[in-house]
Amino acid sequence: MKGNLYLIPVSLGDNELNEVLPQRNFEIIDEITHYIVENIRSARRFLVKAKIKHKIDDLTFYEISKHSNRNEYHKYLDAALKGEHIGVISEAGCPGIADPGADIVAIAHEKGINVIPLVGPSSIFLALMASGMNGQNFAFKGYLPVKKPQRIKQLKADELRSRNEHQTQIYIEAPYRNASLLADMLESLKPATKLCIAVDITLKSEFIQTKTVKDWKKSSPEINKKPAIFLFQAL
Amino acid sequence: MKGNLYLIPVSLGDNELNEVLPQRNFEIIDEITHYIVENIRSARRFLVKAKIKHKIDDLTFYEISKHSNRNEYHKYLDAALKGEHIGVISEAGCPGIADPGADIVAIAHEKGINVIPLVGPSSIFLALMASGMNGQNFAFKGYLPVKKPQRIKQLKADELRSRNEHQTQIYIEAPYRNASLLADMLESLKPATKLCIAVDITLKSEFIQTKTVKDWKKSSPEINKKPAIFLFQAL
Repeated sequence: MKGNLYLIPVSLGDNELNEVLPQRNFEIIDEITHYIVENIRSARRFLVKAKIKHKIDDLTFYEISKHSNRNEYHKYLDAALKGEHIGVISEAGCPGIADPGADIVAIAHEKGINVIPLVGPSSIFLALMASGMNGQNFAFKGYLPVKKPQRIKQLKADELRSRNEHQTQIYIEAPYRNASLLADMLESLKPATKLCIAVDITLKSEFIQTKTVKDWKKSSPEINKKPAIFLFQAL
Repeated sequence: MKGNLYLIPVSLGDNELNEVLPQRNFEIIDEITHYIVENIRSARRFLVKAKIKHKIDDLTFYEISKHSNRNEYHKYLDAALKGEHIGVISEAGCPGIADPGADIVAIAHEKGINVIPLVGPSSIFLALMASGMNGQNFAFKGYLPVKKPQRIKQLKADELRSRNEHQTQIYIEAPYRNASLLADMLESLKPATKLCIAVDITLKSEFIQTKTVKDWKKSSPEINKKPAIFLFQAL
């Protein structure tokens, strides 16, 4: 019988794991000996914090990143074909969402390995819940273009789609670029468009607020270098 | 000082709550006396199952549904203005995503009430994680049109968008219509398009599998009357 591929979310910052992960996840982790991870150091740190039964040094880790050779990925799943469970752990949040885990999962499906997603914090989903925006139709677009003209062009196109399709638009940004993204949004979106800024989600410093672009222009929060999600909905 | 509006996810079926909810959620529930819920009976059942400290009969419940009068919603938030915490509970999964909670949240933002989303199971997100499809760009479209010609028209338009924008397309369906939606997808999507069928997510009977439309046509699972999420990505 094949082992399972468990998708194991981690916390979004330095909080206690039982604030954001169900008890069941810790029980499953204790059955896993092989891990495919985005970063070995942070995965090991997570497993220590989760107080796993196994000795960390007895576990097998494979690291994947956008620089990895995908032809190697098949081998990382061999343990499951031999009946061992494998865990996937990303740098933050939920594997497979805005990170390289999805490629591993796709191969697992091809090999007929059971893929089991565990519950945990996704900054995208928590931000959407707390935004008060349309949760019946939404799109996550990842990162916007870095160059201002292309970025503004996409923002305007997405704003039009948001209005025509009643679709909430969601983005993530590298923390050091937050302030410049926010400035571009306030410059290019229409005054009546609702914009949600969600920062430090699940942490003590969490800040999630939805206002119109017009109101954000009057005063906007200090968000630079903090992990953030941006959502907007045009009316 | 104002109370908070907590968004409290519930389980997706009849499993144990600590399989899908972090310990912190139970601690927060014990501080809440006012609830805005999609269905009072199921919210009470959830709170009993969560073993809350308060007597259920001492709690205040407001019910919201798509038939509710939105002009009443403002009043439901009065307790928070007086310093009491309020909880939002939907019928299944995460409040504000594919359910009426979003309207309450939007009003809370207007009133300057702190909105705090708690971690829990979202069938949409868990299905996306486990699909192996693009998690850097995805759109949830809710329900497809019920009538076949419109439904097929939208499926084909979404398939084109999926290919052009590398965007995963995600849908939910009323369980009794699953089989007919699947049949329409297999009929109208291209053979090479990847389709993920995710059924009974987080339950013992969980089934999540991604194959090409061509392969699903050879044999497809019995999914009728089971809660399901459908995802596709065109290549």
